[in-house]
Amino acid sequence: MLGADDCTYAIAGHGRLDPVATFSELGTLRGANDVDRYGTGERLNAFEDRIAGLLGKDAAVFMPSGTMAQQIALRIVADERGRRTFAAHPTTHVAIHEQAGYAYLHALQFAPLGSAFAPLTLADLDAVHAPLGTLLIELPQREIGGTLPAWDELCALVARARERGWHVHCDGARLWECGPFYGRPYAEIAALFDSIYVSFYKGLGGIAGAMLAGTRDFIAEARIWQRRHGGNLFTLFPYLTTAEAAFDRRLGRMAAYRDAAAWLAPIVAAAPATISVQPAVPPTNMFHTYLRIGTAELLGRAQQVAREQSVWTIRQPAPTPVDGIVKWEIATGDATLELGPDRARRAIEVLLGA
Amino acid sequence: MLGADDCTYAIAGHGRLDPVATFSELGTLRGANDVDRYGTGERLNAFEDRIAGLLGKDAAVFMPSGTMAQQIALRIVADERGRRTFAAHPTTHVAIHEQAGYAYLHALQFAPLGSAFAPLTLADLDAVHAPLGTLLIELPQREIGGTLPAWDELCALVARARERGWHVHCDGARLWECGPFYGRPYAEIAALFDSIYVSFYKGLGGIAGAMLAGTRDFIAEARIWQRRHGGNLFTLFPYLTTAEAAFDRRLGRMAAYRDAAAWLAPIVAAAPATISVQPAVPPTNMFHTYLRIGTAELLGRAQQVAREQSVWTIRQPAPTPVDGIVKWEIATGDATLELGPDRARRAIEVLLGA
Repeated sequence: MLGADDCTYAIAGHGRLDPVATFSELGTLRGANDVDRYGTGERLNAFEDRIAGLLGKDAAVFMPSGTMAQQIALRIVADERGRRTFAAHPTTHVAIHEQAGYAYLHALQFAPLGSAFAPLTLADLDAVHAPLGTLLIELPQREIGGTLPAWDELCALVARARERGWHVHCDGARLWECGPFYGRPYAEIAALFDSIYVSFYKGLGGIAGAMLAGTRDFIAEARIWQRRHGGNLFTLFPYLTTAEAAFDRRLGRMAAYRDAAAWLAPIVAAAPATISVQPAVPPTNMFHTYLRIGTAELLGRAQQVAREQSVWTIRQPAPTPVDGIVKWEIATGDATLELGPDRARRAIEVLLGA
Repeated sequence: MLGADDCTYAIAGHGRLDPVATFSELGTLRGANDVDRYGTGERLNAFEDRIAGLLGKDAAVFMPSGTMAQQIALRIVADERGRRTFAAHPTTHVAIHEQAGYAYLHALQFAPLGSAFAPLTLADLDAVHAPLGTLLIELPQREIGGTLPAWDELCALVARARERGWHVHCDGARLWECGPFYGRPYAEIAALFDSIYVSFYKGLGGIAGAMLAGTRDFIAEARIWQRRHGGNLFTLFPYLTTAEAAFDRRLGRMAAYRDAAAWLAPIVAAAPATISVQPAVPPTNMFHTYLRIGTAELLGRAQQVAREQSVWTIRQPAPTPVDGIVKWEIATGDATLELGPDRARRAIEVLLGA
């Protein structure tokens, strides 16, 4: 069985994670001031200020995970407003990937909005009658392939939420990836939201870590909750320094990753085994592909492509409700740029060919 | 103002934390199997099994922090037994250093036992009339200088708790440091407890990280709670690998650190500014010193010692309820071994002299 590390190329991602190379970035450490202690440190706090500034927010706090950051944001609003319900797309990470921490730890209630298979609409917001604390909007909507509302649609959603008096929080796990599509400064996107979470792995390729940004009071309160969650670590410098390095290296490449998705999606869409690609024209570096192929057959072909072309494609497809159809999530990155369209086409021909 | 990094020697700890040197330990990474993903990875899970084995427990789970690990242990017991109260020494970390996360996140209640200034006694346990889920015992009791019950006393406490039907959890933040005093395998100490948390920084000198150990079911449930807490990170390998390296390097030195505390404590105790040393004969590498000296005067002298002897002593004393008396916590380590008694004596003469 070959794996990603056995191949020269890969269709998605940033290439293999080499721990030693990753940590050579720590060579940029200048001294003790770079090593934070329980959330305090010159370099840590300067990076928080820098991201807050880029997002046009008063303050930001670095946390080990987005799971922690978002639950904390929802909890602060719930306690402040006395409203324990938050609303979001049915596929929000908070609801489907966090073992219901929002309920078990924070006694919050989740109101799913609209269809799990379609983007949020104004009609979905209008259908809310329960008193809400927060509306959470995820940019892009990962579980439906990284679909992203047009700028005017996004503004309309937020305006409607404001009319209702809701706190509007952005799940910006892939916010950086949205920059090229909106063609606006990140601060202009973030200005739509009362609070926003961003990530330093995924598109940026750090190894873990997140930030929550908002008003000064909100972030001060979030730091207290971070300690309650056990996320105020003795030191975070391995995540901090790699996050900073990944940010500096890859933020400027988001358009290139998006462009790679733009040439890759049609190649995948044209393959015989492909039913559909969602979204058809990827607004970010991500898209989902629905394939009519058995998992064993697909993985056998992936091994063949790895063996014959030294291109890594897919480790495991995701199931779908439709028997015989599987899903493949592709997020382009450095590896895709290096692969290029010609090698990608040859790989897809074998992987998804007749 | 001089700092620890400006001095050749230090009276406590393991010497300066050099991030680059720390991460040279990552050079021992052999490949992709060493990089865990969301709690799964050959090296991570092997280290968990190794620590579980050393502690004589079925299973263990690596977590970013002890705060998370201990709240999770208490919560699992509370849900299982329908008893939301846990009891512990009044100075337990859970009650005084975690912003009451146990209450805010887990709706647990805390029953403080006995005196904040003395070790737990059987009489303290007998005074409990409320139905308890868990009795938490911290080894050693950090906030009273690292006091440690004799083996027979500890066994008696646990036996009494068992008669009452309580789950007995060990806060083993400094468990490794207790080995020389008890002179028993760690598994024999851990066997007293239903669950136990251990740390990889503090005495071991890693950079962060903890493990929770217990029965297979308990740890499986703890992994679910870890995800709820936002502690199931994309990858933990920087903490894992440095924890493992620190463990291999320093576990065997615990007796040497304890011996260093044994020669250092009398030196400090004999100084004119010292009121008392607690405990007078340190059972581990830690002791607390109560000093009759103004903070400004003390820090001025610390600067003098740093300047004249290149020995780092104290950054900031802790306040006490007694006006004019401050507290200094000393935990010996590699730096103390290197310093040696003669240099220590000269430093203390100036720092705490007449």
